[in-house]
Amino acid sequence: MLLNKFNIFVAMIRIVILGGGHVAHHLSKAFATAKTVSLVQVYARKMEQIETLQSITSITNKLSEIKDADVYVIAITDDAIPQLSKQLNLENAFVVHTSGSASLEALQHQGRKGVFYPLQSFTKDKTVSFENIPLCIEAQYSDDLVLLDRLAGSLSKQVYTLNSKQRKSLHVAAVFVNNFSNHMYTLGHDICKAYDIPFEILFPLIKETAQKVTTITPKEAQTGPAQRNDEQTIAAHIDLLTAQQQIIYQLITKSIQEHGKKL
Amino acid sequence: MLLNKFNIFVAMIRIVILGGGHVAHHLSKAFATAKTVSLVQVYARKMEQIETLQSITSITNKLSEIKDADVYVIAITDDAIPQLSKQLNLENAFVVHTSGSASLEALQHQGRKGVFYPLQSFTKDKTVSFENIPLCIEAQYSDDLVLLDRLAGSLSKQVYTLNSKQRKSLHVAAVFVNNFSNHMYTLGHDICKAYDIPFEILFPLIKETAQKVTTITPKEAQTGPAQRNDEQTIAAHIDLLTAQQQIIYQLITKSIQEHGKKL
Repeated sequence: MLLNKFNIFVAMIRIVILGGGHVAHHLSKAFATAKTVSLVQVYARKMEQIETLQSITSITNKLSEIKDADVYVIAITDDAIPQLSKQLNLENAFVVHTSGSASLEALQHQGRKGVFYPLQSFTKDKTVSFENIPLCIEAQYSDDLVLLDRLAGSLSKQVYTLNSKQRKSLHVAAVFVNNFSNHMYTLGHDICKAYDIPFEILFPLIKETAQKVTTITPKEAQTGPAQRNDEQTIAAHIDLLTAQQQIIYQLITKSIQEHGKKL
Repeated sequence: MLLNKFNIFVAMIRIVILGGGHVAHHLSKAFATAKTVSLVQVYARKMEQIETLQSITSITNKLSEIKDADVYVIAITDDAIPQLSKQLNLENAFVVHTSGSASLEALQHQGRKGVFYPLQSFTKDKTVSFENIPLCIEAQYSDDLVLLDRLAGSLSKQVYTLNSKQRKSLHVAAVFVNNFSNHMYTLGHDICKAYDIPFEILFPLIKETAQKVTTITPKEAQTGPAQRNDEQTIAAHIDLLTAQQQIIYQLITKSIQEHGKKL
């Protein structure tokens, strides 16, 4: 038991995490040290996926041995959510998934449903500090939303309540700013490699570009030959690219130019 | 006169900057405070473009009044370089331009040629610290390259000697990692706006994505539905986008998937 800000005793939030991948691992480690949370158990289909968590909590690979908890967090691939949640045999349990794109209805257990979506891309070997990771929450009932808000607040300073449509749209927006901009880095890397240029020359520019849009809108920050309709430079660039790179270069150039016209 | 690292007196490098835009302004301010450089003069066609520099150096709008210098730095738009350099009436002067995409031959004066290309996108109101901006240099003669190396070293810790082909390729790579990734931010911003989601939720992800490629290659850092061939999520994303966004989404998804196959 803990005291809340009104000096009233509040119960620790007991959670069970289900999953053996990156998100499940990172969440388990973070919740294990959160003050207002008690990580009761971690479940995965194969024990070897979660063996390393044995030192911080109870682990199991049997759904029949799942312990009592206030929140069950399913952190697995989208496709597998319906099946696992259906197999959960818990009366009136509150179960959430951690997916940006799966709907509430992907949860098919008999009970209350919610979403606990950390907006970050997790890499295996990179340790994650949740403090600055936005957590997007959703629940069917307001009491559950309050519970999720407390749970999220135990890890992060940035908690947002989003409905399913917003969360799915945010997930698409994240694909653009993360996956697609990373692919732009990959294409830049390819060009550097082809012409024997150290990619590190571009690091300050990459950082500055990312930094800039936290102070002005990306539209205001847009520069370059496409933005200023510098057809001569565009033509010279095209000459240096492979056929595949040319297609991307031309389409994004056109998109920048047409985006300019619409406003 | 100054002492170099061998305690030998070395001459201050006298420079004249020609141009009234962002790059000329930022360079003028930086060189004015550099220890081994004497900013002799700034030239622009219109006095009002450089009036604010009057407190730090001599200014002029007459080519006939250009002073003696060791290096003349032409910092103007690519298209205007040939004409201005042709008008420069200086015997055997060393003239450099600051363009990433213009060739050495864009300089049409009678004399020695070089390039002094700062790889950064300059915004009007944002102050720039050159210390971490990579400077790419090129010259026809080795003595001039040594001079440019000293000049660049007075501003930045990152100085790279690149030939014209490399510099032009680097400029294209910069378009991908800067202009094009910024456009991905713009499209993400559009989606957030359409669904009433605060764009700031994406800031940590944007920063993390940029940060990651300074420690692992962008290819290794690639995540997302395209990378893992998650056709169900891709289809759901497409449904949420405008026709124009769909075209970009599909092309970059295909590019990520095919890039994976090639390796």
